[in-house]
Amino acid sequence: MGYLQQRIEEEGVIYPGNVLKIDSFLNHQIDPKVMKEIEREFYDYFKNRKVTKVLTVEASGIAPAIMVAARFDVPMLFAKKARPATLNREDAYTAEVFSYTKQTVSEVMVPKAYLSPKDSVLIIDDFLANGEAAMGLVNIVEQARAEVAGVGICVEKSFQPGRARLEEEGLDVYSIVRIAGIDSNRQRITFKDGH
Amino acid sequence: MGYLQQRIEEEGVIYPGNVLKIDSFLNHQIDPKVMKEIEREFYDYFKNRKVTKVLTVEASGIAPAIMVAARFDVPMLFAKKARPATLNREDAYTAEVFSYTKQTVSEVMVPKAYLSPKDSVLIIDDFLANGEAAMGLVNIVEQARAEVAGVGICVEKSFQPGRARLEEEGLDVYSIVRIAGIDSNRQRITFKDGH
Repeated sequence: MGYLQQRIEEEGVIYPGNVLKIDSFLNHQIDPKVMKEIEREFYDYFKNRKVTKVLTVEASGIAPAIMVAARFDVPMLFAKKARPATLNREDAYTAEVFSYTKQTVSEVMVPKAYLSPKDSVLIIDDFLANGEAAMGLVNIVEQARAEVAGVGICVEKSFQPGRARLEEEGLDVYSIVRIAGIDSNRQRITFKDGH
Repeated sequence: MGYLQQRIEEEGVIYPGNVLKIDSFLNHQIDPKVMKEIEREFYDYFKNRKVTKVLTVEASGIAPAIMVAARFDVPMLFAKKARPATLNREDAYTAEVFSYTKQTVSEVMVPKAYLSPKDSVLIIDDFLANGEAAMGLVNIVEQARAEVAGVGICVEKSFQPGRARLEEEGLDVYSIVRIAGIDSNRQRITFKDGH
């Protein structure tokens, strides 16, 4: 069992509706030991994909993404949820992302200047559930005619359709921890083997 | 001249009102070489302060803060600008931060559980101008009766009062790059020596 999974077992807090909070080491306070494991696992798995850029979405994807980017020695780029005043709409790739939790559609954006058809982009995110954020990032990479090198996820909720949606697009998804089920009543998490 | 200053000279974009955009290597796309310099400089300067935690504010402070935290091997904590549904108001330390650019007051927050009087907290941020965000973070550390180990800033606008405000509080401020002036008309940046 990896260190991230161990911390989830010890400190994960379950809220109604299968919501898992892991704020004490990944999403609000961030443990560097968890980051080191993430960096090592993603590097080992994707190291032959000629990664030229790491892409994530603000804010909780930034920490794992910069650690992985530093390991690959390539730039990290994060999609913003609000357009900066200095970025014109026509200068950005945008994608709509639906939030099941909030029941809202938001837009994420990346300046066109930072992605080119020569890029092989590793997408990194903290969670994968329905796959909305990851699909938005894939959409942005495709708009730039760049290649998706793969998708690296820290914690996958394997009982939700995110992985299947990404795999249907022919993408290679590697998740460090895969959660098979969350039982809100019993406060119990079960894990799936493998990646 | 350090690498961060060199990149600012080469790629910094000046907008009216002394606004400096360095989105291509620090604020939107992030160069791991810049991060390595930041990590090294802050570690060298603050290494004897018994740092137990690194604190920043989302989103652009997260990348430098996690790199520095990983070097110190201590947790990184970021203040959020919106309160998560799972965090009760009474369980959070909050501080108001005024944005001169947007002319708005916003609130930043950290769960009380992640700061204690035993902590020696290194505050890291990407920019220091009027010092509003940094003062908000200092305020949060003080509410927790923890100690501020120091304030590490990537890019300081030395012609604005942020540093003076922090130093009046008796804090040790270390900035990797200090900008003496920005001339919007001539598109010219001048730097201040030292830290």
